[in-house]
Amino acid sequence: MFVKSFCIQRCRIDRWETGSRLHNEDIRAIDWIREYSKERSRLRHLAAGSPGWVRQMRLAADSSQVWCILVLTGIAVGSIAAGIDVASDWLGDLKQGVCGNVAHGGKFYLARPFCCWGAPYAECADWRSWSVILGASSSFSRFTVDYFFFLAISLVCASCASVLVIQYSPEAKQSGIPEIKTLLGGFIMHRFLGVRTLVIKSLGLCLAVASGMWLGKEGPLVHVACCCANVLMRFSPGINENEARKRATLSAAAASGISVAFGAPIGGVLFSLEQLSHYFPDKTMWASFVCATVAAVTLQALDPFRTGKLVLYQVTYHSGWHMFELVPFVLIGILGGFWGVAFIVLNMRFHRTRASTTYIFRNRPVAEVAAVALLTAVVSFPISFLRAQSSELVEMLFAECRDIHNDHLGLCKAGVANTGVIFLLLFSAGIGLALAAITFGLEIPAGILLPSMAVGALYGRAIGLVVEAWQRQQPHLLFFGSCEPDQPCVTPGTYAVVGAAAALAGTTRMTVSIVVIMFELTGALTYVLPIMVAVMVAKWVADAFGKQGIYETWISFRNYPFLDQRMDEGVGGDLLVRRIMTPYSALACIPSTGETAGSLRRLLVNSNVRGFPVIISHVKPTLLGYISRNHLEWSLGRDIQDDTPCFVQEQPTEDTIGLDLKPWVDETPITLSPHVPFHLVRDLFDRLGVRHVLFTEQGTLAGLLTKKDLCHLLDSAET
Amino acid sequence: MFVKSFCIQRCRIDRWETGSRLHNEDIRAIDWIREYSKERSRLRHLAAGSPGWVRQMRLAADSSQVWCILVLTGIAVGSIAAGIDVASDWLGDLKQGVCGNVAHGGKFYLARPFCCWGAPYAECADWRSWSVILGASSSFSRFTVDYFFFLAISLVCASCASVLVIQYSPEAKQSGIPEIKTLLGGFIMHRFLGVRTLVIKSLGLCLAVASGMWLGKEGPLVHVACCCANVLMRFSPGINENEARKRATLSAAAASGISVAFGAPIGGVLFSLEQLSHYFPDKTMWASFVCATVAAVTLQALDPFRTGKLVLYQVTYHSGWHMFELVPFVLIGILGGFWGVAFIVLNMRFHRTRASTTYIFRNRPVAEVAAVALLTAVVSFPISFLRAQSSELVEMLFAECRDIHNDHLGLCKAGVANTGVIFLLLFSAGIGLALAAITFGLEIPAGILLPSMAVGALYGRAIGLVVEAWQRQQPHLLFFGSCEPDQPCVTPGTYAVVGAAAALAGTTRMTVSIVVIMFELTGALTYVLPIMVAVMVAKWVADAFGKQGIYETWISFRNYPFLDQRMDEGVGGDLLVRRIMTPYSALACIPSTGETAGSLRRLLVNSNVRGFPVIISHVKPTLLGYISRNHLEWSLGRDIQDDTPCFVQEQPTEDTIGLDLKPWVDETPITLSPHVPFHLVRDLFDRLGVRHVLFTEQGTLAGLLTKKDLCHLLDSAET
Repeated sequence: MFVKSFCIQRCRIDRWETGSRLHNEDIRAIDWIREYSKERSRLRHLAAGSPGWVRQMRLAADSSQVWCILVLTGIAVGSIAAGIDVASDWLGDLKQGVCGNVAHGGKFYLARPFCCWGAPYAECADWRSWSVILGASSSFSRFTVDYFFFLAISLVCASCASVLVIQYSPEAKQSGIPEIKTLLGGFIMHRFLGVRTLVIKSLGLCLAVASGMWLGKEGPLVHVACCCANVLMRFSPGINENEARKRATLSAAAASGISVAFGAPIGGVLFSLEQLSHYFPDKTMWASFVCATVAAVTLQALDPFRTGKLVLYQVTYHSGWHMFELVPFVLIGILGGFWGVAFIVLNMRFHRTRASTTYIFRNRPVAEVAAVALLTAVVSFPISFLRAQSSELVEMLFAECRDIHNDHLGLCKAGVANTGVIFLLLFSAGIGLALAAITFGLEIPAGILLPSMAVGALYGRAIGLVVEAWQRQQPHLLFFGSCEPDQPCVTPGTYAVVGAAAALAGTTRMTVSIVVIMFELTGALTYVLPIMVAVMVAKWVADAFGKQGIYETWISFRNYPFLDQRMDEGVGGDLLVRRIMTPYSALACIPSTGETAGSLRRLLVNSNVRGFPVIISHVKPTLLGYISRNHLEWSLGRDIQDDTPCFVQEQPTEDTIGLDLKPWVDETPITLSPHVPFHLVRDLFDRLGVRHVLFTEQGTLAGLLTKKDLCHLLDSAET
Repeated sequence: MFVKSFCIQRCRIDRWETGSRLHNEDIRAIDWIREYSKERSRLRHLAAGSPGWVRQMRLAADSSQVWCILVLTGIAVGSIAAGIDVASDWLGDLKQGVCGNVAHGGKFYLARPFCCWGAPYAECADWRSWSVILGASSSFSRFTVDYFFFLAISLVCASCASVLVIQYSPEAKQSGIPEIKTLLGGFIMHRFLGVRTLVIKSLGLCLAVASGMWLGKEGPLVHVACCCANVLMRFSPGINENEARKRATLSAAAASGISVAFGAPIGGVLFSLEQLSHYFPDKTMWASFVCATVAAVTLQALDPFRTGKLVLYQVTYHSGWHMFELVPFVLIGILGGFWGVAFIVLNMRFHRTRASTTYIFRNRPVAEVAAVALLTAVVSFPISFLRAQSSELVEMLFAECRDIHNDHLGLCKAGVANTGVIFLLLFSAGIGLALAAITFGLEIPAGILLPSMAVGALYGRAIGLVVEAWQRQQPHLLFFGSCEPDQPCVTPGTYAVVGAAAALAGTTRMTVSIVVIMFELTGALTYVLPIMVAVMVAKWVADAFGKQGIYETWISFRNYPFLDQRMDEGVGGDLLVRRIMTPYSALACIPSTGETAGSLRRLLVNSNVRGFPVIISHVKPTLLGYISRNHLEWSLGRDIQDDTPCFVQEQPTEDTIGLDLKPWVDETPITLSPHVPFHLVRDLFDRLGVRHVLFTEQGTLAGLLTKKDLCHLLDSAET
């Protein structure tokens, strides 16, 4: 049985059973159960017929392959992330100036922090802005020159990134998370994880981040990590040829992307578990953890920022929080929920507009990216908060004022109730929302996590400043009773962290991973409770407007087939399966006798389904099994003549003439009663990972339901 | 369909289908699928027939119940843990002396650290040992008096704990983790999570920890946390009456036990995910995280040790590790694996001896505990490392020498190559192994995590001291090339941490949770890599001798039914289901016609199975459905006479006389082909959580397999 199913499996390349409602013909579902069987029989073959210790050695060598792949992936991801950090920082700083005397080719290869290492920000003589280099004299001409270079370099970076992606690897565009979610959910997407995608996405990401557009590198880094693992997997046939093992390895690798993006290995593992992975057993968790940690340690060893910190915006606070602060924290949570909803709605509206024929940039994706980049640069340059790169902005917003030595953003100006700063923070948050909504989804590598964090940090810090000013003005209010007199009581930086967490929760609807990522960023249990409260409130508020986060929304928008595990209640409550299955009368079935090779060939031509139930006869449709299109095509090889009788024999006897299809028929398809409730079928697809279910009533075929039908049904029910 | 299944469910109290191979008649399996249906229909009933906002409010109120329960559980667990910490510390210190002038009733209620707050350990005048209080003069009599009190108080504490447990709540004995694993795997155990168990386990735990025996409070705290949640759940009928929701809530609560035991909320969540829980969706993870964090924050707010640290043995290191140290770390990992195997083998051997009739303490559990406590005390008193409480010992072993201000254990004596200390550490580790092996499983609340950590820390520190001494003696060896000259290079405390992690991995076979717990204890990413390497090596070494950790071993030993998800490969590879199912010929089936109430009553009396397949007739055994024993008993109520014909009607007509069993028959049982491979059935039981599977061939009943049969089959295949 096993050997047979193994052999058959090798030649079987199933595609979708019913292609009728299909938009993405390239996407195929995998059958987890068959893949696991394949792996089991492969292991048995590997171990068979050898003495004990040889078998042990072989099995050990085989299972060590996946660890080698993961460790190498971790090292590769850590190194790539360090490279992207260094390159995008240098390119980004180039927008404002150059290190050293550029005419004599000074240390132009240094980014601003290294050029001015140790010196105060304003007094760094080595760093020259473009206006200084070109010798602009008046303050107006200085402003113009700097503005021009800022715009020009932003534009060039963004356009290059877009051209790279569109020309060489369209799969490398956008964040890649919706695609990875679909892929890990058990579907096959071609060319999505190749070498070319890896290279283009990495290069494009440097340029995109440097362009200063409202995008992050977190999502794309997850994609890069999966590409690394996928490329390395090609050296191990045992993994590469098994779609289920491939997915387990990719789940593990995905964690390393988030690990290096946020310096949060555990956060990465939980992100993979909570957001990405369909099936995540213990073993995958450990693999994931190993990969994430190796990546983080590699990044720390390379230390691209030369700060000893894993990521730029890692912080430590000097004081705790007070109970009364829970009130602003809840407010921040509510705003985070609204941000998430507003962002998703605006983003979707923009992308629906893009699809219309009157859209000006229709079929001009590079021009579109350039226009958005130009708009971003035009708006950002005059506003100090927006001129900085997102990661630098977030770092500043998270920090306590006493830790900020180079306050070039003007965040910590003296004086109580600095309404100017508060207004500017809120204004920047608004601009950020608008820009993020039009940027996410363009033809450029672009993530949404860092922009969300930046917006959250902006409005969070604004609220923090308001509370701080209020407390300083009226320290004797009962509300502020727990503050010590004449001591700073409110730390606006913590509000920024809480705001960032709340905004992330609103956008992605994750919970644990966000709290853990923030916990690893701040390194103290102290702030876990406020972050948790804000995340929970943000999720509640956002969920009240619709359960789907940005990634699920994009999965629906793109029409990817995907079974969302979180859509647990509601849909199809009272539905009985017999209402939604394709009924027997509409199915193309093969009777066990009476067919010829010719009639079967005609059947293949006339129907586009991916497989056929086999029944005793049309008069008595008792289910005998299921034969896939490919098996049928295979069995009807060229040298079989059209008039050869084909049959499925119950008891093989040697004297029958014709073609016995029995060896190609799967005789144990999963069957259910058509009277079972809908959720049971859903559980079967979701938890067992089957690709199709046949329905029988006392042995008689009643209908068929495929995973993709179910996905589309759920999708249409939701939207 | 739903309403019916809901109503039927309410009266149905299924027990095991086949009781034949059963040792624990009290343990019943739950049917996850039915429980989820129940919950779905409950929610629909709750929301039905109200206007939109009333429905929303009702649903919100309903779903907030679980959060209230979890937050309250967190607060309760944090408070109980603080209470246990304070009480057991005070009681434990009582073995060595009393604070203040006991005759005048001084501050006797203070444990030693509070009595001597701020003063060096040796110079604390307020703390009086028993010999000082009783005025012993000679050094011999001082030793004797102190020894006597040490023995006596140990003995009293241990005996009291044992008497408490045996007299008032036998469920409170031991660690409780194997039982919780079984319970969360989908089985019902009575009285295991009641108020009485909660109180007795908490009190017993204080006494047991204070007795100085080789046991920890981590496992029992998980049990306590589950008891808290279970007691609080009784106030919410919606959760209390649904076994699946109950399990989700308990999974979440379990995390808080580990959270307060190690001060590691994320570690707790991952422990629950990796070790305990059968089914752990996203929602449970977030619930678990909330509960664990609330518990940790409560404990931190109560601050029982007045150190500001969450647990006693939280540490921070001043320096990193060097590449060459990976060699000793791997050695530590190997030893950790061996420790795990040795502990499990010794523990099992001891408990098999206990079952023999010639065992001296047979049926005298209190005497047995007292004897072990006495033995522990006799051995421990002369050895400074063992005299300390486990948590204090671990704290000392983890610390860097420069951070230890009160070195009363003599761990940091000056001088290179202190062979005495090294020998004593290794000797203590050996004693620890022996004592832990006979202590775990006695009739007393006792966990194994802290003893494992202590043994690991002991031998880890010993290896650290060896490496340190070697490096100091021969600093110019190439091996030590990465050390800076004249600087301390090796930190023995880190070896203790790595050793503790390795020993934990050897005992429990967990991976991620251990690393995360250690990460949260040391708070630095720096040491994650060595810990990871040691844990991985320990797991590999231990797994080479047998895949089962201590908890799984106990589950087998106790004959609890449990489907171990980790036993993925190997067992039953080539097996076809038809070889292991109960075949049709051996099943008691009910035909659709021809039975009378009397014949069915006889059937109920003559068979002990928990349900019956319903077939058309014995001649044509086409499966119609399945009726459980309870439903059958219910339908054959008293007022039905023995000669009433009973039947299962296909098409209900009103003019038939007799009892139609159809309303009680489950017409959509899960069926499979008897030719499916074994692992598919296993996946079905494991992932869908069904309780029994019927096998049909073209509609004809072929056999039946229950979850418990499968558990026992797997169990016997492994041992």
